Amino acid sequence: MSFWTKYNQTTKLHNSYVCIGLDSELSKIPECLKDEDNPIWTFNREIIDATKNRAAAYKLNYAFYISAGKKGIKALEKSISHIPSYIPVILDVKIGDISNTMEQYGKAFFEYLDADAITVNPLMGDDVFTPLLRFSDRMLFVLVLTSNPSSTDYLGKDGLYKTIAKNVSKKDHKNFGAVVGATNVKEFKTIRSLMPKNIFLIPGVGAQGGNVAEIVQNASFSKSEPRFLVNSSRAIIFASSEKDFASEALNATEDLKDKINQNLFV
Amino acid sequence: MSFWTKYNQTTKLHNSYVCIGLDSELSKIPECLKDEDNPIWTFNREIIDATKNRAAAYKLNYAFYISAGKKGIKALEKSISHIPSYIPVILDVKIGDISNTMEQYGKAFFEYLDADAITVNPLMGDDVFTPLLRFSDRMLFVLVLTSNPSSTDYLGKDGLYKTIAKNVSKKDHKNFGAVVGATNVKEFKTIRSLMPKNIFLIPGVGAQGGNVAEIVQNASFSKSEPRFLVNSSRAIIFASSEKDFASEALNATEDLKDKINQNLFV
Repeated sequence: MSFWTKYNQTTKLHNSYVCIGLDSELSKIPECLKDEDNPIWTFNREIIDATKNRAAAYKLNYAFYISAGKKGIKALEKSISHIPSYIPVILDVKIGDISNTMEQYGKAFFEYLDADAITVNPLMGDDVFTPLLRFSDRMLFVLVLTSNPSSTDYLGKDGLYKTIAKNVSKKDHKNFGAVVGATNVKEFKTIRSLMPKNIFLIPGVGAQGGNVAEIVQNASFSKSEPRFLVNSSRAIIFASSEKDFASEALNATEDLKDKINQNLFV
Repeated sequence: MSFWTKYNQTTKLHNSYVCIGLDSELSKIPECLKDEDNPIWTFNREIIDATKNRAAAYKLNYAFYISAGKKGIKALEKSISHIPSYIPVILDVKIGDISNTMEQYGKAFFEYLDADAITVNPLMGDDVFTPLLRFSDRMLFVLVLTSNPSSTDYLGKDGLYKTIAKNVSKKDHKNFGAVVGATNVKEFKTIRSLMPKNIFLIPGVGAQGGNVAEIVQNASFSKSEPRFLVNSSRAIIFASSEKDFASEALNATEDLKDKINQNLFV
């Protein structure tokens, strides 16, 4: 099943555009799980079980798994397998390298880990995409304008993000989406006009402070088909540090889902 | 021992500025090793044993290890441990993300894998460096201008590489170096003038065709102290696909070392 098929099915079935970011940092996992054999895996399993009927997608940030060594990688693999197969899995790796290297990353992320989508850093130019095109049922979310303060150093300076947006818009929207940070409200309209068809992965709500109403108004492809995923990580998965962490994660997911939908269907 | 201490010692001791790129692609490993339990590890061990007195550094490209699953990661860990501790180990990951994520990559690459240096993609701006500064004895090689054809899409366009070079030059050269591809001969002089003190990691000779004499003339900090590493991967490690692969790797290393030195000390 392709990324787009999964996305279309899940967003309709769950009435949700919420992507849950599993930035499952070991030191932040609730105390009640610290004695588990693999706390990150147990934590993710409980978060997934609690939220799987309200999630439009899950995004796993590679850094938080490899920093925990062998158990972290095991937790990553088991979490991806545990996510119901009709829900898109995005692996956040922000990678970009020369062709023979990207061929290997393609194998690692799309074959070995079997993700439906990855994030890609376009700095080294179009060479980074070429070896990934053979994965014709997957999605590449290209960094266009990120949510962090220093995104103005390069992406937000001299219109670099516009150049990237234009280049990505020329590619097949079935395989190419964009990462556009929620903190860039005034640029959203421009980016959507430059890449009308592409799906946006929107991080930066919650902990980073992006405004949901403005995102929905400016980032949607259309009211019935917004073509975006609003990602929230810490504000959902660490909504509570107590035993109720999973049910509180569900509550936080519902809240974000409702906030998006209230603004979408007006 | 810091990256710089290792670099200064090893380059003098081995009279060499050759960085050997262990892009140990499983499908290219010589037939004679295919029945080994972990062919990548055996291959790397023999390459390291053969070349360790002529290498100025080793660079391991992360993609080639994670694409081979658990055994690939095992091979990566064992290879790093097997490299003599006075030789700098560069982990080529080309990563760049927001602060809380870079904190995790720092742990993964500098603590868990204990690399002396990593490559960093600066697209998301200065936020990507901040969490890595606490590793004050390590080196960050920042992508400035890469060796691949499409580096002209963004880095080589509108002077982006110059802006990056200027920004990196303002940071402490003890911790900040630059990746400058060997195929950009005419830009080398400009980049060296913009970042006089920083060490350059120079990929793109060998398989990618960069010219050694021109690199040496244009990229050196000074004749006695060039402050660079010329990386060659495929042309060294896959110099032969037969049983003599390790001795041929040494020959290819010697050849490159001599070509660099002939141009350096004139």
